[in-house]
Amino acid sequence: MERVKPRTLSGFMELLPPQQAQFERIKGILEETYGRYGFTPLDTPAIEASEVLLAKAGGETEKQIYRFTKGDSDLSLRFDLTVPLAKYVALHHNDLAFPFRRYQIGKVYRGERAQRGRFREFYQADIDVIGDGSLDIVNEAEIPAIIYQTFTSLGLTRFQIRVNNRKILNGFYDMLHWGHKAADIMRIVDKLEKIGTEKVGLMLYDDLGLDEDAVGEIVRFMAIKGSSQEVLTALEEYRGKNETFDQGLEELCTVVKYLSDFGVPQDHFVVDLTIARGLDYYTGTVYETMLLDHPEVGSVCSGGRYDNLAEYYTDKQLPGVGISIGLTRLFYVLHEQGMLNEAFPTAPADVLILPMTEDLSVAIAFATACRGFGVRAQLYTEPKKFKAKMNYADRIGVPFVAFLGEDEIQNGLVSLKNMTSGEQEKVSLSAAPEWLREKVAARNVGAPIRE
Amino acid sequence: MERVKPRTLSGFMELLPPQQAQFERIKGILEETYGRYGFTPLDTPAIEASEVLLAKAGGETEKQIYRFTKGDSDLSLRFDLTVPLAKYVALHHNDLAFPFRRYQIGKVYRGERAQRGRFREFYQADIDVIGDGSLDIVNEAEIPAIIYQTFTSLGLTRFQIRVNNRKILNGFYDMLHWGHKAADIMRIVDKLEKIGTEKVGLMLYDDLGLDEDAVGEIVRFMAIKGSSQEVLTALEEYRGKNETFDQGLEELCTVVKYLSDFGVPQDHFVVDLTIARGLDYYTGTVYETMLLDHPEVGSVCSGGRYDNLAEYYTDKQLPGVGISIGLTRLFYVLHEQGMLNEAFPTAPADVLILPMTEDLSVAIAFATACRGFGVRAQLYTEPKKFKAKMNYADRIGVPFVAFLGEDEIQNGLVSLKNMTSGEQEKVSLSAAPEWLREKVAARNVGAPIRE
Repeated sequence: MERVKPRTLSGFMELLPPQQAQFERIKGILEETYGRYGFTPLDTPAIEASEVLLAKAGGETEKQIYRFTKGDSDLSLRFDLTVPLAKYVALHHNDLAFPFRRYQIGKVYRGERAQRGRFREFYQADIDVIGDGSLDIVNEAEIPAIIYQTFTSLGLTRFQIRVNNRKILNGFYDMLHWGHKAADIMRIVDKLEKIGTEKVGLMLYDDLGLDEDAVGEIVRFMAIKGSSQEVLTALEEYRGKNETFDQGLEELCTVVKYLSDFGVPQDHFVVDLTIARGLDYYTGTVYETMLLDHPEVGSVCSGGRYDNLAEYYTDKQLPGVGISIGLTRLFYVLHEQGMLNEAFPTAPADVLILPMTEDLSVAIAFATACRGFGVRAQLYTEPKKFKAKMNYADRIGVPFVAFLGEDEIQNGLVSLKNMTSGEQEKVSLSAAPEWLREKVAARNVGAPIRE
Repeated sequence: MERVKPRTLSGFMELLPPQQAQFERIKGILEETYGRYGFTPLDTPAIEASEVLLAKAGGETEKQIYRFTKGDSDLSLRFDLTVPLAKYVALHHNDLAFPFRRYQIGKVYRGERAQRGRFREFYQADIDVIGDGSLDIVNEAEIPAIIYQTFTSLGLTRFQIRVNNRKILNGFYDMLHWGHKAADIMRIVDKLEKIGTEKVGLMLYDDLGLDEDAVGEIVRFMAIKGSSQEVLTALEEYRGKNETFDQGLEELCTVVKYLSDFGVPQDHFVVDLTIARGLDYYTGTVYETMLLDHPEVGSVCSGGRYDNLAEYYTDKQLPGVGISIGLTRLFYVLHEQGMLNEAFPTAPADVLILPMTEDLSVAIAFATACRGFGVRAQLYTEPKKFKAKMNYADRIGVPFVAFLGEDEIQNGLVSLKNMTSGEQEKVSLSAAPEWLREKVAARNVGAPIRE
């Protein structure tokens, strides 16, 4: 037979079983955490009609789309989860209760140029709260709590949530009479961390033609640093000069005020006036999340407040706030940085049962009993040598092996070997499932990420 | 602004939040059950290189493929999870331990003609056990247990697992000297339930040219019915005439022998000599699962033993056994038949917290405390009238509402309203999260399907 060489496309993540188990655990923690904040799971098709999906898109995004025809349908694979959400909310508006809180963890597709750590198929893990006509600021204050809880549950400690408010920036540039260039200014200021203050100043002056006073004001403004309280105090200085600015400052104060009630420690949060997130979509609070020891990774969880989710589909005003985690890329980075907790159990089973007798009834009944106790049990009945069986146990990393020979069966016992310590003991067949359940539960603690 | 009419493509399932919650619960039960039998989760790309994915395909399947080019790559969306598994096992052979047990629940794509209840994007939920060179028969005996446990956990009771063995059929047709037409005979016999014995006999005689004796033997053979034990006894009559038949009968006896040890009740299992499952892929035990009250749905979980998973990619012999549930179609049918348990909780939150004061600190701290206890809590802070707030609670179906007014806060209390019974009581703020946790746990029992 002529054979085809098996391969997986470049830019598509395909994990081996232990890494897949870690990935699933991380995904599970996101689902659980998002659920805890009252978000409902959603699942929309990966394929949409091109005219729906590309209602807004253009430029770089449109070039990356996987677009094709089937019959006389013009179809596209989704490139994010926000556009499908907009379609969903516009389409099912009458069947939804607002504020509508949904999470979605799903694959999206972008035909980017292949490069290390960039993926063409990747998971995004999004939450959004959508209001009908209006949406209370408390929803924006809650987002840092969700980010904090999510990353803490994953096992991360060295991260920082950075928050800003686009109204503050827009209002400030208005004050300087450069509000008409706000988007351009933000694009340049966004490079501050990368290229430094001096170059940013030069670009504002040379490229945008800002006067020296304005450049000086901007540089001074962006230099405001310190604790959230210190930054807010410094911002008070600008209050009363611009309505938009004042509103943004009020919102930021509310977000900061409720932080500790939401359970976010001060040291995991900072007001950072330099962040702006994109150029026209966000209208209020914006969020970034940095891994403190890996700033080169950039923000691992970003988002913000927007005023109009679905303007391309409906004339209803649907403001919202949301964040997104690029899960595939985050997983890739954690793996690369050696931050996946190797001690975290990834074996497909908790116990591997090795029958040593011809008749398998007892072994099978024991496996059935273990499963009844929630213990993940695998029967191994291949006719291999003992050494090969133990090699298999080692390779799948199973924590316990159960031996069932004539001797054990006659005495109603099972020999249980702890594969980590090497200890082996005989336990009564009836008590063994509960014994295993407890031992396995004690072992299955800890988070999938360690620092 | 010019608006695009939002729509979801026909043949693509998109659920409203309550149904999505039910779907997720069903998916979760499959994952948990599969995991309990020592299967490891796998996730492969939805897009593969066309030459890899279509190594085997042809005919009807190939016509349904979503195939397209991006740059100079010829790409296809997967149409099942078996071909990607074959590729995966061939590609990663050296990194896997055999038997390799994996489950995968993922979307697959088939551009079928659109019709009610047929989907172009749908979930399959597959398990497979792959051996390297050989695979013990006990793996085949375990499959009915997994099917039984899966459907029972979902809440189904009125189902039956039907098992046969292709070797028995092949051996039997050999005995009649019509082994060279075995595939054609099976295709006709497969229609038995639909068109009846008489028509099947005529087709065998007229279309295939079988002699009257052979037709009579086949009709007599297919009429063998009864308990598993009765069928096996009847089959003993044919033993000793054909090696393949005898081997198949041995295998079937082993599968039946261990059934009760595997926890499968007799009344959920039957040996059915009429089923064959496809025409060339399966080589041993084959499985179907029928909903007894909905035979028109056909098999909801099918599979079997095969000798060579990945012959198009590798010269390694990789025998296996697997089953597949067409999850999207199953869910559609359950919904249509009114078999989704309406009493099963689908609300996005366990408690909706309604602050009645300007300062929200206490309400936010209470929400945070609830979440710490695993209670899914949603804060509702939109400035709406009381009636609108309660309407919202009703619409999302939340089981408890927490009121926090001046009065409650001054006394360290929270008013908790049970939305099902209408009862309301005041509980201390510190005890309320645990109070809710217990009440919610007591409510979250039951299965997502009821009959």
